[in-house]
Amino acid sequence: MDEKKVLEALKEYRKIDLKYEDGRILGSMCTKPHPISKKIVEMFLETNLGDPGLFKGTKKLEEEVIGMIGELLHNKNAFGYIITGGTEANLMAMRVIKNMKNRNAKILIPETAHFSFDKAEDMMDLKFIKVPITKDYTIDVDFVRDYVEDHKVDGIVGIAGSTELGTIDNIEELSKIAIDNDVYLHVDAAFGGFVIPFLDKKYKKKRINYNFDFSLEGVCSITIDPHKMGLSPIPAGGILFRNTPLKKYLDIEAPYLTETQQATIVGTRVGFGVACTWGIMKLLGKDGYKKIVSECMGNTIYLTKKAREYGIECVIDPIMNIVALKDENPNETCLKLREKGWYVSICKCVNALRIVVMPHVKKEHIDEFVEVLASLRV
Amino acid sequence: MDEKKVLEALKEYRKIDLKYEDGRILGSMCTKPHPISKKIVEMFLETNLGDPGLFKGTKKLEEEVIGMIGELLHNKNAFGYIITGGTEANLMAMRVIKNMKNRNAKILIPETAHFSFDKAEDMMDLKFIKVPITKDYTIDVDFVRDYVEDHKVDGIVGIAGSTELGTIDNIEELSKIAIDNDVYLHVDAAFGGFVIPFLDKKYKKKRINYNFDFSLEGVCSITIDPHKMGLSPIPAGGILFRNTPLKKYLDIEAPYLTETQQATIVGTRVGFGVACTWGIMKLLGKDGYKKIVSECMGNTIYLTKKAREYGIECVIDPIMNIVALKDENPNETCLKLREKGWYVSICKCVNALRIVVMPHVKKEHIDEFVEVLASLRV
Repeated sequence: MDEKKVLEALKEYRKIDLKYEDGRILGSMCTKPHPISKKIVEMFLETNLGDPGLFKGTKKLEEEVIGMIGELLHNKNAFGYIITGGTEANLMAMRVIKNMKNRNAKILIPETAHFSFDKAEDMMDLKFIKVPITKDYTIDVDFVRDYVEDHKVDGIVGIAGSTELGTIDNIEELSKIAIDNDVYLHVDAAFGGFVIPFLDKKYKKKRINYNFDFSLEGVCSITIDPHKMGLSPIPAGGILFRNTPLKKYLDIEAPYLTETQQATIVGTRVGFGVACTWGIMKLLGKDGYKKIVSECMGNTIYLTKKAREYGIECVIDPIMNIVALKDENPNETCLKLREKGWYVSICKCVNALRIVVMPHVKKEHIDEFVEVLASLRV
Repeated sequence: MDEKKVLEALKEYRKIDLKYEDGRILGSMCTKPHPISKKIVEMFLETNLGDPGLFKGTKKLEEEVIGMIGELLHNKNAFGYIITGGTEANLMAMRVIKNMKNRNAKILIPETAHFSFDKAEDMMDLKFIKVPITKDYTIDVDFVRDYVEDHKVDGIVGIAGSTELGTIDNIEELSKIAIDNDVYLHVDAAFGGFVIPFLDKKYKKKRINYNFDFSLEGVCSITIDPHKMGLSPIPAGGILFRNTPLKKYLDIEAPYLTETQQATIVGTRVGFGVACTWGIMKLLGKDGYKKIVSECMGNTIYLTKKAREYGIECVIDPIMNIVALKDENPNETCLKLREKGWYVSICKCVNALRIVVMPHVKKEHIDEFVEVLASLRV
């Protein structure tokens, strides 16, 4: 095949894919990357941070990006990496607990945790104790406190922006428990990390504690993904640790390379995720992200109102741009919606459809979607 | 910062990076991606194979690519994925052994194995038995046979194109041992997978058994990276398993997504690695890859001859496009070369400098390099 034919053929395959801008992707935490990404990706396509001594400029960008995200999370001394995504980030945090505390570490984790933790448990032979969730779908802090006081526990996982409902665990209380009992605390803010710091006051609820970052002394590591609400292209996940000494629990000797120790799980890794994150953060600044988060939150509230007009209720009043719509047979409804070209996902902890109101989801998509959903329910 | 300033600033960082085309990167298994990549990356930048139901066209491309690579490796029924790289591929294979055979699986592995296996051992609590290498730097098959007959062993790793020397283990013999003793055999052909099938007769040596793929019945899985000699951009690693039933040892329940089980380690993952690999394989065809491999082999031999002219000897007569040059103080020489802007790496199993003669390494670079190296030795 010649180049022209190859590109034409690929275009045909690509046509089969859904496109974010059509507004039919309603269950994904990814979105169309910021338009500046294409130019940056082109510029950094050949870079490889798996061999950082060859790409010192790109490596410097990574250090600066970690510094920028660290500042956002109130810790200028944070160390970390821009990696493949939330799964690698969570795996790295669990690896630190395994190597620091106990090869078969016992870790308390809320029922709402993302399935990447199931991968960690299976791969690393960790022992997860699933903590029940309260009526507001957050980790039961009393259970955690009682459990930690009665048992030897190595780690706690808290979530700032749960995958299903966007709920925020009370990290401040978890932090106190972690400090009092010398337990490692990891916060999964893969989604919430680029939402919570930019939430306008008017979207905040009094009963919720929005503190989730390194300003809480017990927090040892945070997963925060630029390729979700940070608008970076995939792959751009993020893992930040409180301080550099934690690196030793991750290091594997790396011969053949320009660095002698490697801490990430993936070896060869693109540099453009770093460069895009640096570029998009500089371009948007805090105000830019605030604007985007406010638009998404506006559309989130619009969706809940619109749904209510058709008698469709939410599981909770949305905390971030994730909406769970009550549904008696979510699996069935989800498949029916797919047949009509709408892609939502479903919750596990409650009978509900799950919609992530990412920046590509506009009011006109919501209008159309709610009508279709209502028509299925008649 | 506005868009123009961001791009200008990034360009400055990028200038600090080395460029493949300058021919100074002599120790990397990556190279400048094929020029068609840029257009394909742009077309597929927003795709996410972590949620394949949304990107059915891209998912179809992945199935086709696995089919194409499967055919190259003599197995039309292979199943697998285009993933982040050799590390994720090797981790996935080790995970299968762990879940199929034994949570603390005992695995025989040659001393020449890549450090990604150290990551696997540390993360998954596997027990690796390091097999000594013979005088030709390949796995000692007799040791393996004796060991497997005397002990309970769960897996064997063979290497087709070792990182340090490009040596090929006798996979055919390992395959027989694996079958006779019901042991899982994984082949790491991360580098060699896109070299060996395209090696011209004149570069093949009689004493070496070049069989390494699924035509050998004992081979259960193969790591083969398009982003090394396949000329795809990062991330495009490859893992192929003999058949689909092996998938169950990897599957983790995946709620929220359009697939219900996820087998890869990474969750959210780009689709462009798949699309680029599909496009580049179609564009180059076997003849195209043969030409590239022949050019690299030609330059490899050129390097060995040139080095010899200056009295610098090779550790072995190169088997693929990797050259190990004997050096009494490789660490020191390596650092001195870096000071002069040349980036080689070093071997672990022998005192030598290691040069990977990738497509970006041309004769004029070799001329210059050997002169500099010789001048350091005076």
